[in-house]
Order: sequence, then structure tokens, then C-alpha cells
Amino acid sequence: MSDAAHNSTDGFLTLLDLAPTGSGPLGGLNFAAKDLIDIAGTVTGCGNPTWAATHPPALVHAPVFEILLQAGARCLGKTITDEFAFSLVGENHFYGTPRNPKAPSRVPGGSSSGSASVVAAGEVDFALGTDTAGSIRVPAANCGIYGLRTTWGGISLAGIQPLAPSFDTVGIFALRPEILGRVIQVLSPSEAPPRINRVLMLEDAWQLADKDVAACRNEAARRLSAAGIESQSITLGELVPGDLGADFFAWKTTFSAVQWPEVWSTYGAWLETVKPGLGPKIAENFANVKKASRDGLAAGLKNRLHARHALRAFLAPDTALCLPTAPSVAPERGRVDYDRSGTGYLPRTLCLTAIAGLCGLPQISAPFATADGLPAGVSFLGAADTESALIALAAALDPDRT
Amino acid sequence: MSDAAHNSTDGFLTLLDLAPTGSGPLGGLNFAAKDLIDIAGTVTGCGNPTWAATHPPALVHAPVFEILLQAGARCLGKTITDEFAFSLVGENHFYGTPRNPKAPSRVPGGSSSGSASVVAAGEVDFALGTDTAGSIRVPAANCGIYGLRTTWGGISLAGIQPLAPSFDTVGIFALRPEILGRVIQVLSPSEAPPRINRVLMLEDAWQLADKDVAACRNEAARRLSAAGIESQSITLGELVPGDLGADFFAWKTTFSAVQWPEVWSTYGAWLETVKPGLGPKIAENFANVKKASRDGLAAGLKNRLHARHALRAFLAPDTALCLPTAPSVAPERGRVDYDRSGTGYLPRTLCLTAIAGLCGLPQISAPFATADGLPAGVSFLGAADTESALIALAAALDPDRT
Repeated sequence: MSDAAHNSTDGFLTLLDLAPTGSGPLGGLNFAAKDLIDIAGTVTGCGNPTWAATHPPALVHAPVFEILLQAGARCLGKTITDEFAFSLVGENHFYGTPRNPKAPSRVPGGSSSGSASVVAAGEVDFALGTDTAGSIRVPAANCGIYGLRTTWGGISLAGIQPLAPSFDTVGIFALRPEILGRVIQVLSPSEAPPRINRVLMLEDAWQLADKDVAACRNEAARRLSAAGIESQSITLGELVPGDLGADFFAWKTTFSAVQWPEVWSTYGAWLETVKPGLGPKIAENFANVKKASRDGLAAGLKNRLHARHALRAFLAPDTALCLPTAPSVAPERGRVDYDRSGTGYLPRTLCLTAIAGLCGLPQISAPFATADGLPAGVSFLGAADTESALIALAAALDPDRT
Repeated sequence: MSDAAHNSTDGFLTLLDLAPTGSGPLGGLNFAAKDLIDIAGTVTGCGNPTWAATHPPALVHAPVFEILLQAGARCLGKTITDEFAFSLVGENHFYGTPRNPKAPSRVPGGSSSGSASVVAAGEVDFALGTDTAGSIRVPAANCGIYGLRTTWGGISLAGIQPLAPSFDTVGIFALRPEILGRVIQVLSPSEAPPRINRVLMLEDAWQLADKDVAACRNEAARRLSAAGIESQSITLGELVPGDLGADFFAWKTTFSAVQWPEVWSTYGAWLETVKPGLGPKIAENFANVKKASRDGLAAGLKNRLHARHALRAFLAPDTALCLPTAPSVAPERGRVDYDRSGTGYLPRTLCLTAIAGLCGLPQISAPFATADGLPAGVSFLGAADTESALIALAAALDPDRT
């Protein structure tokens, strides 16, 4: 088992064939769902064999899953997740690393690794995942596909295993924005979607990125201009005055100060009681969570509220921020730097994903590419409940359409 | 055991004495927490002995609980809840019916029954509970105390057992608004709370109430006028145009169409696998949930979104609706009509509680009284994140202050 993480595998954990239970706007579309989302008659395993062995099969579909079938979609399977959805890498010790079709030597990203993989491979039209700290956005960027993290609270999480409840969201992958648009109209129908006509380049976020990824900024600006959308420059410090403001690492620290106690509330008692087998990297993550001081909780909550109010007050529904989804292209398989402290791959990625995470806002990652042809993600982060507008914005910039 | 429901009991399930872990704005205050909220070292039993016997003790406090200790409060115990928080009555088959100090022949209301009881008895300064469909508001009304249901999503539910995740909220009881204000500033600090200067009497909601409760409308209007706050009349149909609109029972139906599938996602597999002992009324509730059609889920979600957008668009932060918390005073102990269909006590109550429930909005229930001296609740329902303003409004109307 111990080499499974380095074996390339299909993104599916289990193949299924669940016919639609109704007809509607998703007629003719196939999809898959992350192993965190209840599918009746199957165990929701959360990427860990001991969890799977100690929990009964789901009796009913998660509501979010059920309404997709009711709207005409067909489900082809359950996809691999990083263990307990607590990783951005996409290497599962037990079930392997879903392949990254557009960059086979690179990790797919996680935790919604299998869902991203099967979409990138064209095996399904769309796939469901979850995003707490970037688990939709990072795999979308790594795999060169569209990934939408939805507004926190906009889509019910019933029947979906929590990680850190005040951050967890549902997300969707697809190869084309149009498919995302059809799915979001079922999951969170918008009566009068706003239109985004102003995009602010988050310049300090672009400065945090590696040179090859940062080059996507100008390509994004070029496409915005070609689409007739006004773009301007701004920095995080201007958006959110105060201590947090311009210090990306303070955003990451604030995120962890709230997320880690929630993770321990979700999994601590089960882990300490059952003592399950864990992959070495997730075991290390949980050990860090267990020993972390909880003294920063109140300050973390206060900083989060401050950031949330400031960014939400600033972001009108017609405005989006443009930033790199992750600061680097996908790391090479088997050679990922898992260190969450310092300024390596994961901490820098968390600096960027923490913005939507702390503020509970939606973000779409659109597939761009580096000069070397590796996938890179350009993200648009919008006001609450502007998923349809973000999808329309991404469609307007899609090179296949222009 | 079978008569336990009709035995009067203290609201405490377990007495504790957890000293504050810091000093702060809650110094000198004692509190209790519902048996749904993790307290480290104790089992979160959800009001059911089999659940308690099949789950390990919590390893850590729920974050919401922990920051109260950090802010200087002392915890005196864990309080009785209706089984799985799925009732508005307050009769627990196994642990008894917490006494209602101001109306001893009446039920305390649930599901946060014990928390309301210990606050009403003056045993603690405040208590935590949860509110999905009215589980803070109804016991506050029945027991003649203040109860605040907070904005959905405003306070983390980590370490708190879910019932229907897209409705569940944290709530607080206290004898005085000032205490609620101190607690909310810890749980959800507001930098610049709005001030409510306009209150709309929801006239059709008042018409749904029994005559004795409906008489509180004029008393509320009198107090508003004495406090210099403008009040006007409005109806639900004017607020939310469309099918749902003026039909209170459609609000209740929409609520159940979404809530019941979520409840079954939360508890179905456990109930069917473990086959726990259940009180007869909760067994009936779960049987109804199990056999209910799930076909209305998509329509329910769509109607909920419509209602949410319409009411949130209407309700400015300086505006609140005034309605009866429940249409009737607390029913007599042992003689409650548990029928959820038809137009009896529970369905009519759910018609009123579904408004804040479906729209995810905060609501404070203030203690008024009928001509016979029985407790009745007058509610103020505000815009998202206006808890402090609702508390200030309630304080301005408090007869002990005027």
C-alpha cells in the first residue's frame, strides 16, 4: 500500500451508473462526485480505508447530488479525494494519485483530485468536489480545467462530510464555462445574475507568484481588454485596511487559527478513539493540528470578520478581483514540499486561497498556460452569490470562443 | 423511563464547573450549553441515551464554547435538549421535561429546552442553544426570557451536532438584553452595528396568532412609540411577491421540503444501522421524514432562494419586522398536540418560525405577557448580521428600563 501514492491511477474510486431520475437542464450530461459526498448505497469513505470500514453506507443521496439526478444528469462514479479532504496536493497514500492528463509528471492537486482528473480526461462532463482551503481551485489550476468554488453557505452541505464547517463549500469542475453555468443554475438558481464589468488586478498577489505563473497576468489583462472589460490595479492592503491587509502570510495564519480547531472538532475524537491507519502526510497534518495552540482562536475569528466585512463591503456585484489561483504550477509527483510552515509551495498557495476562504466568497479558476505549456490557473474572485456572473466572465475570456 | 417526559426536571443534564480560561468582557458571568455542543471530556449526547453510549467524549470544546471561556465566562453545565434537536416542545422521553419557572404547568418549548429553563430560573446568566426551525425562539417565548437566533452562517457550528445544516444556527438565552449584547460581541463582534429605526408590523402574522398572543401586538406598538421608533404595517405577501408570499403554510411546506431530506442525510444511516431506543414522538418524526417524498427538494430549494433574495433585498439594516414568536402560549405539559400536518399548534408555529429559517436571518424573541400573565414572545426579525441592533432594539423596549 505504501507506494500507492506514487502510482498513477484513474480519478475514479468506484465506477457507478446512476441514471437520471428526472429530465431537465442537465439532460445528456455525465458527472462524478468526490468521495466526501453521500451517494445512496455506497460508503462515503473520505479517502481513508478505516473511515470507510467503520461507517455504514449512505442511505440517501446528499441533497446537492440528488437534485443533479433530478435535473437530468447521469452519475458515472465516485472520485478519489485526499484523505479527509485535508490537503491541496492530490496524493492519496491508499488509493493513489489521480493522473493529471495535461501534465502527467505533475500532481493533480487536491483535495478534489479525482474529480479534477476525470474532468480533465474528458471522462465526465462535470464533477462535484468541495473547497475549504482551495480544494477545488488548486486542482483546477493544476489540471488545466475550470473550477468554481461557490459562495460559502450558498449550497447545502447536508450529506457531505465536513472538514472545517465555517469554511467548507461545494465546488464544480468542467472543461467549459457553459457546463458550469448549467450546473450552477440547478444548484443555486439566480433570478437576475449581475454582470461583471470591472476587474481589479490584485497586483501583490501576482507578485507572490513564480515568474512563469505571473506572466499569465498580462495574458489575462489582454483577454479582458479584448472582451471590452475595464481592468485596474489594486492591492490587498488597499482592499482590507488594518493588520491583516497587505500581509498575505497573516491571511494564511488567520485561516489556520480558525480552521485547525474546527478540523480537530470534526475529526479529533474519532482519530483518538479509532486510531485509524493514515498516510504519513495526513498523519503529520493531524499531529500539527492536535498540538497547535488554540489561544489564537478568538483573535482569528475577529480578524476573519474584519476581513470579511471589508472585502464584502468593497466588492460590488459587478466587480471581481483577478489573481493567480496558486503561485506555482503543479509540483512534480513524488517530490512535493509538504511543509506548511515557512514560505514554500503550500504556505504560499494558502496565502492566495485564504482570501476567498476567509471571506466566504466565490472564485472561479480559469485554465491558462505558462510559456512551457504547463497548466496555470487565473482566478476571478467575486461578491457573494455572483457565481453566474463569474462564469459569464470566464466564458467571455475563453480563447476557444474568441 | 417512559414517564420521564412528564416528570419535571431541572434543565441541567450534567452539572459542571469549568472556570474561565481568560479574562474579558464576560468576566463574572455563568453559562450553560445545550447537549448538542461539544464540551471537552463529556459526551455530546444529543438528548438520546443510545447516541451518548455510541459516541466518544468530545476531545475539545466547540470553538464557540471555547471563546466564551476565553472571554471570562464560567460554565456551570450541559443542558437537556429534545432528542436530536428535532422538536419545538421540550419534552424529552428519557431525561424529562425541564421546568418552565414562569409557567410551571406549561412545557418549556424546545429543542433548547434545558438552556431556556436554567436561564428562566436564574441558575445561569446566559445559555447557548441552537435554532434550526425555532429551537431558540419558541422556548424563549414559552419561558418568558430573551432568545436570540443568530444569522445563519454568522457563528461557527464546528463541534456542534448538525440537524439540517443549511438551517442550523447558534442561539443565546438571557434574562436581559444587555447580557445578550455582551455575549454577541464575543461570538460575532460587530465593528459598526446599525441602529434600527423602523419596525414593520407583520400584520398577517399577528392575525395567525391566538387572541391572547395577538394582543401583544398593540403593547409592542405602544412600547415602540414610547421609544420613538417609527412603526408601520406590512404583510408577508407585500414583502415576498410570488407563490410563497402571503401563504404562511407554503412557507412551512417549503421549509420541510428542504429540511427533511437534510435531517435524513444527518441521521438516517445511523438510525437504520444502530436502531436506537427513541421516544415515541421523535420516532414518529423520523418515520415521517423517512417516508416523505424527496421530489419536492429542487422546488423547495428554488422557493427558498426566492424568499431569501426577496426578503434580504427588502430588509435594510435599519429595519426590522415585528411578529409573534409563536401563535400560542406554551401548551400544557403532557397535553401537547404533536401533529405536524393540519393547522394545529406545531404547524402554525412552524409557519412563523420558517420566515427567519428559510431566509437565514436573525430574530430576537422578547418576553411579553398575556392578560392572564402567561409568557408570550414578541419577535423582531432583522437583516443579516444585525444581532447587535436587534438586541439594542429589544433593550429600548424593555419595560424594566422605561
